[in-house]
Amino acid sequence: MLQEIAEQPTVLERTINGERQKIEKLGAFLREREIDLIVLVARGSSDNASLFGRYLLEVTTGIPVSLSAPSVVTLYGAKINLSRALVVGVSQSGEGTDINAVLQSAKDSGAFTLGITNEADSSMAKIADETLLIHAGRERSVAATKTYTGQMLHFYLLASILGDRKIDFERIPEYTQQALSLTPQVETLVERYVFMENCVVVGRGMNYGNSYELALKLMETCYVVAERFSSADFFHGPLAIVERRFPVIMFAPSGVTKKSSVDLLNNLRDLHADCLAITNDAEIAAMSPKGLMLPAGIDEFLTPIPFIVPAQLFAAYLSAAKGLDPDAPRSLSKVTKTV
Amino acid sequence: MLQEIAEQPTVLERTINGERQKIEKLGAFLREREIDLIVLVARGSSDNASLFGRYLLEVTTGIPVSLSAPSVVTLYGAKINLSRALVVGVSQSGEGTDINAVLQSAKDSGAFTLGITNEADSSMAKIADETLLIHAGRERSVAATKTYTGQMLHFYLLASILGDRKIDFERIPEYTQQALSLTPQVETLVERYVFMENCVVVGRGMNYGNSYELALKLMETCYVVAERFSSADFFHGPLAIVERRFPVIMFAPSGVTKKSSVDLLNNLRDLHADCLAITNDAEIAAMSPKGLMLPAGIDEFLTPIPFIVPAQLFAAYLSAAKGLDPDAPRSLSKVTKTV
Repeated sequence: MLQEIAEQPTVLERTINGERQKIEKLGAFLREREIDLIVLVARGSSDNASLFGRYLLEVTTGIPVSLSAPSVVTLYGAKINLSRALVVGVSQSGEGTDINAVLQSAKDSGAFTLGITNEADSSMAKIADETLLIHAGRERSVAATKTYTGQMLHFYLLASILGDRKIDFERIPEYTQQALSLTPQVETLVERYVFMENCVVVGRGMNYGNSYELALKLMETCYVVAERFSSADFFHGPLAIVERRFPVIMFAPSGVTKKSSVDLLNNLRDLHADCLAITNDAEIAAMSPKGLMLPAGIDEFLTPIPFIVPAQLFAAYLSAAKGLDPDAPRSLSKVTKTV
Repeated sequence: MLQEIAEQPTVLERTINGERQKIEKLGAFLREREIDLIVLVARGSSDNASLFGRYLLEVTTGIPVSLSAPSVVTLYGAKINLSRALVVGVSQSGEGTDINAVLQSAKDSGAFTLGITNEADSSMAKIADETLLIHAGRERSVAATKTYTGQMLHFYLLASILGDRKIDFERIPEYTQQALSLTPQVETLVERYVFMENCVVVGRGMNYGNSYELALKLMETCYVVAERFSSADFFHGPLAIVERRFPVIMFAPSGVTKKSSVDLLNNLRDLHADCLAITNDAEIAAMSPKGLMLPAGIDEFLTPIPFIVPAQLFAAYLSAAKGLDPDAPRSLSKVTKTV
């Protein structure tokens, strides 16, 4: 897992270069097609990447985005009218049975279908009208890391061809490299959390998907029960459980979500709650009992990939510090074939 | 909370009768408009009701449904093209600031907007093109119960005018009354869970929203840390935490989700995990260490409202058994005004 985390800048660079031409052609094609809905289909970590993709694509393109509920098709046999939709399947292995069934059903209803996968010869690549590849090499750890950020990168590429906003995604590999410089700091920090059994992970907007992803990583690799919330939803009930002295881990970049991070930090201070902020904002770092600081200059839109890196490192090192093996969680297998 | 739970059959009956005419007119109007997307906008318990609404509406109408991410509009200022969409705001109080902002923004982009609320004079009712009222009377407990099922009922009414499938929603008040007969059984059962600090709530398809709702109720009123999952997602990681001996509470009706409930129960048995099934299927009841049994004859599509009733009772009685006050959770207020 640690090795695959460290490979990420290279994987991202390779993916940008490898898919650039295909993306440009796809952009010309999709702009002609007048897409009026984007549907993302995924499970597990890929679903967390898609949760990020949902925010990015809606904000940058103005096209409504829906996260698919595969059971609607696979269990209830619904025929959904997606004739003007772009339907994107997201799967590391490309072998999620239900994801592929939804993709096939969308294609049958007239949608243009796209696969985002790490496996060029997968079932997904055969079903989808077009496939965007993550150039990650094989991912051996059960806990997805480099394919998660590779999927996120593809949402940037899609946003750049479907929206008008200039997105400087070429800088992401460099920011990701800078995030890796936190490695020794995280390795030391996890000692503080060796006996943590529960925590709450908070993120909002572009970093909301990251809060789900860190929570999943902590459950998979550390058996920490991690609740994940948007800082917006947090005041609708979950705040009550923080009073039980669960530490909060928050993704808190500078930018439009800063105000809600600051509000939450003020609340947590009143409750004497423990907090670890993954941030690039000096004020937030000063307010939070613990912090992991990334470069201040990263635009909020570009924070999600570099910000998940210290979180991945946190899960991997904490797992080891707890005497567990992050690469072989109990009861789990790499490819999950739900129907 | 207990009193408001018991009022539900009456509230549901009153809501059907009070809104019947409006619904029929709305149906004629919407069928002319050629809606090709439905967007649901909500937070908290209303968001859980909407998660149910999403499954019901997609399955019965074939129109894609998206659960809105309010921050896309309120934080990032995105203008989303919803000119052919039906946008439904769902809020007990009708005063959720961000929900109303999203509704206004959708209206400005040409969407037809609908409010589902308990308050006829609320800000939401003023913004929305049409308002569907829950006839619940004032809800005094901070933990929403009768407005949650009232919101769910409105999704049945919407499905009945937008889809071709005959939905026998008139039977729901009677099934809900039958569910209330479990009251003494639940009151006794909670004794077993007085020292439960964590649990996992599982549901799928039509009952997926209920798993979120029970988890929220347990967090709000009992300070139990409740993870919620679809039985489909469960095998993507969260199974690992069940090995820590957390009890599982599952919504497991007969019907299309039965197979995945049985699979999960087999897995839980191998792990010697504790399980409480809320079910109307004799085989599932026999497989689960503990069960709460509803009438076998309820069609799966009509299970979500009667099935949440024993879950609401469970949270209310457990809260009391733990020496807490379910009507006044710490740190929470009834109306949450997120921006």
